[in-house]
Amino acid sequence: MSQKTQEPVITKVSELRTEEAKWVTLRKVEFVDQVGKPRTWEVAARKTRGRAGVDAVAMGNVLLHPSRPASTMVVIQYRPPLDAYTVEWPAGLVDEAETPEQAAVREFKEETGYECRVVSISPLQAADPGMTSANMQLVMVEADLPETELGGGGRDDGMPLQRLEDGEHIQRVVLPLTELYDRLVEYSKQDRMIVAAKLFHFAAGMHFAQTQKYF
Amino acid sequence: MSQKTQEPVITKVSELRTEEAKWVTLRKVEFVDQVGKPRTWEVAARKTRGRAGVDAVAMGNVLLHPSRPASTMVVIQYRPPLDAYTVEWPAGLVDEAETPEQAAVREFKEETGYECRVVSISPLQAADPGMTSANMQLVMVEADLPETELGGGGRDDGMPLQRLEDGEHIQRVVLPLTELYDRLVEYSKQDRMIVAAKLFHFAAGMHFAQTQKYF
Repeated sequence: MSQKTQEPVITKVSELRTEEAKWVTLRKVEFVDQVGKPRTWEVAARKTRGRAGVDAVAMGNVLLHPSRPASTMVVIQYRPPLDAYTVEWPAGLVDEAETPEQAAVREFKEETGYECRVVSISPLQAADPGMTSANMQLVMVEADLPETELGGGGRDDGMPLQRLEDGEHIQRVVLPLTELYDRLVEYSKQDRMIVAAKLFHFAAGMHFAQTQKYF
Repeated sequence: MSQKTQEPVITKVSELRTEEAKWVTLRKVEFVDQVGKPRTWEVAARKTRGRAGVDAVAMGNVLLHPSRPASTMVVIQYRPPLDAYTVEWPAGLVDEAETPEQAAVREFKEETGYECRVVSISPLQAADPGMTSANMQLVMVEADLPETELGGGGRDDGMPLQRLEDGEHIQRVVLPLTELYDRLVEYSKQDRMIVAAKLFHFAAGMHFAQTQKYF
C-alpha cells in the first residue's frame, strides 16, 4: 500500500439533511399491508441507480495460475461508514448506461488491474432489505495470472497497475480459495478490520458445505 | 399465509427529513484520508444500536428431523423498501440490553415458532460498507423437528405458532439443505420476489464448493 502514508481519521460526524445528500437519501414509504392496515416504513436509498435497475455488482473472482492453486482477490480499503478497513470482493456501482456485466468487467479492471471474463451472474439480490432499497448482483468472474505473478497469498507487489479514482486507496490481497474462510476469520480479529457480510456469507457457505455433518 | 388477505400496496413515497426519522438516519462523516486530504462521506445508519454494538443477527439454521434430510427454514415477507417479498433467513435487531446470542434465540422463536440452540457465531460483519454503518453477526443455530412435522419442503401448516409483532406477516418455508441454492434461484424468477443478499451468498458459497472445478 505505497500510497498509504497515515491512518485515516474522522474529524467530524454530523446529521446530514436529506435535501443536501447527493449519494443516499431517506424515504418514507406509506403502504397498506396484507390485512388492509395503513403503515409506514423508513427507507435508506441510493440516488445513483441507472437504467439497468441494479445499484451495484460484486465480483466473486477466481484467479487461475499455471502452477499454483486457484485463488481469489479481496480488496481492503478504509470505509468511513464503519471507520474501519473492510475486506470485500471487488465491487462497484453500475453506471447509468451500463449493464451489470459491463460494470463488473470495468470495476474489476479498475480495482484489481486485471482483465476478467464473466462466468455467471446471479439473480438480483436485496442488499439489506429491512433498511434499504439497495440491490445488487453477484458476478462470478475468472482471471488468468501469468506464471511470473504470485497468485497465492502475496500482497500487491508485482501486480498490474490499478486505475483508481481520486481518493480511492485499495489494497489487493490474493488468498487461496481453500483458505478463504479461515483467512477472513483471521482478518476479523485484527484491530479496526471488518469483513463485508456478502463475502463472509459466501465463504461461510463454502466452509459449511465442506465441513458440516448433515448431508 | 392465513393472515394474508390482500397484496400489500404502496400508496405514497416521500422524502423523509432526517430529523423526523425514527429508525434510520443520514450522517455526514468528515475524515482525513490516507494521503492527508480532507474528504466527506454520506452514511445511512440505524438509530437502534444497543449496548452490544451489533445492529442485527441473522440465523443460519439447520432443522433436524428424525427421518428426513436436514433442512433450513427461510422466511418470506413483504418488505416495503423493495416493494417485494423477500426470501431471507430469520433475522432481527439486537435489543438494547441483549447479547447477539440472546437476540438470535428470541428472534428465531418469534419468527419461526421453534426453540433453537446456538452452534456458532460469526465475527462482526459490515452489512453494506460503502453505504451504511449497519453491522451484523451470522448465528448458526440448530432446531429439532418432531417426527410428526414436515421438515422437508412444506409450508407453515402444522408448525408451532409464531409470536409476531403487530404488522409482521411472515411465511415460513422449510427447504432441504441440498436444494437450498436451486430453490433460491427459482424464487428469484417469481414475480415480486427477491432473495436477500446474505442468504443468497451463503447458498452460492455452498453451491460453489460443491460444484466448482478449481480445488
